[in-house]
Amino acid sequence: MEKKSRTIPKATAKRIPLYYRYLKSLEKSGVNRIKSKDFSQMIQIPSATIRRDFSNFGELGRSGYGYDVSYLIEVFSSILNTEIEKRIALVGVGNLGKALINNNFRKNKNLNIVAAFDVDPEVIGTKVNECKVQDISELEQTIKKEQITTAIMTVPSERAQPVADILVKAGVTAILNFAPRRLKIPKSVQVQYIDLTTELQTLIYFDENHNMIETLR
Amino acid sequence: MEKKSRTIPKATAKRIPLYYRYLKSLEKSGVNRIKSKDFSQMIQIPSATIRRDFSNFGELGRSGYGYDVSYLIEVFSSILNTEIEKRIALVGVGNLGKALINNNFRKNKNLNIVAAFDVDPEVIGTKVNECKVQDISELEQTIKKEQITTAIMTVPSERAQPVADILVKAGVTAILNFAPRRLKIPKSVQVQYIDLTTELQTLIYFDENHNMIETLR
Repeated sequence: MEKKSRTIPKATAKRIPLYYRYLKSLEKSGVNRIKSKDFSQMIQIPSATIRRDFSNFGELGRSGYGYDVSYLIEVFSSILNTEIEKRIALVGVGNLGKALINNNFRKNKNLNIVAAFDVDPEVIGTKVNECKVQDISELEQTIKKEQITTAIMTVPSERAQPVADILVKAGVTAILNFAPRRLKIPKSVQVQYIDLTTELQTLIYFDENHNMIETLR
Repeated sequence: MEKKSRTIPKATAKRIPLYYRYLKSLEKSGVNRIKSKDFSQMIQIPSATIRRDFSNFGELGRSGYGYDVSYLIEVFSSILNTEIEKRIALVGVGNLGKALINNNFRKNKNLNIVAAFDVDPEVIGTKVNECKVQDISELEQTIKKEQITTAIMTVPSERAQPVADILVKAGVTAILNFAPRRLKIPKSVQVQYIDLTTELQTLIYFDENHNMIETLR
């Protein structure tokens, strides 16, 4: 495909799932086209950024007319490969792990947590939202059999590195990690960190100091 | 204080809690000083960025010597106001809400979820990790009484806007929102969005396309 022939800035790539989500909700509300200015207000990203991002994918809109919503959805859906089911493993079935399995990204039918692992004998063998929790010793075999390449880690900080090593050995190439400590991992493996404490501290800091922080938007 | 007299770029402000967390863990391991290059490797942020960020807060280090860990902790701790307890309300005691109350940012003794609210009669009156779940109708009164200004929203998407309206009316000025839809909120209120689906989609997208995404680091 033509879009594959060029590179995309990382910052743009990060915004694509957000664009996609909002476009889907516009479509659901019966909106057929949208101007970058209105889209900008809706998603709170500067319209110049939106136009620049979109220009990476060719001529998606016309000046004064706006963008065609269903066409954009088609483009971003193809970029994100949303038609293909993503089978996901989750390691660490504590409170947060359970919450994620129960939610299971239910608004995205193609994102599915299909395997869960833990070390606690009390948890192993139980079912959470139809998903049976397996012993972590079965991880490598299950992940290979199920051809899973994406994993979510909701394990205690001190377990993060050894669990990541097991995941990488099993062939996982994408890890969503809720433990904040940076992992030592091969460059071929993508890691996304979600650090709730840092997010909260940042929020509070911004709240307490909003007069002294430059907003660049 | 001198540091209050100048503005800080938003991008720098976002990294302060991360710096602080790593410095604390260095201190715990008995490390007294660190070079920006080593710190860079540890937290996976370019050392030029770190030096530029730190320069916002005066002369924190000397070339060739590195940064004094305990001094940096002092500076960032004062910036983040970590000595002051932050009392937090949580709205929406479903799976994710329960997980957060149970965890309660336990590694930060001054971040405390002290009040929880829901609309479900089955949940109201129960206790989660010592925290009694109240009816949302009691929110305004409790938040005013407890002088809470920070709230976490773990409510279904369609409830996000009305709950945010209630929080703002009650005097909350900082909201950590796990529902991805953008809120209509006064400019004086800070909102931080945590959108787990988008994070996961971004991760998978990066994994599937890492050859075509420019990494700028």
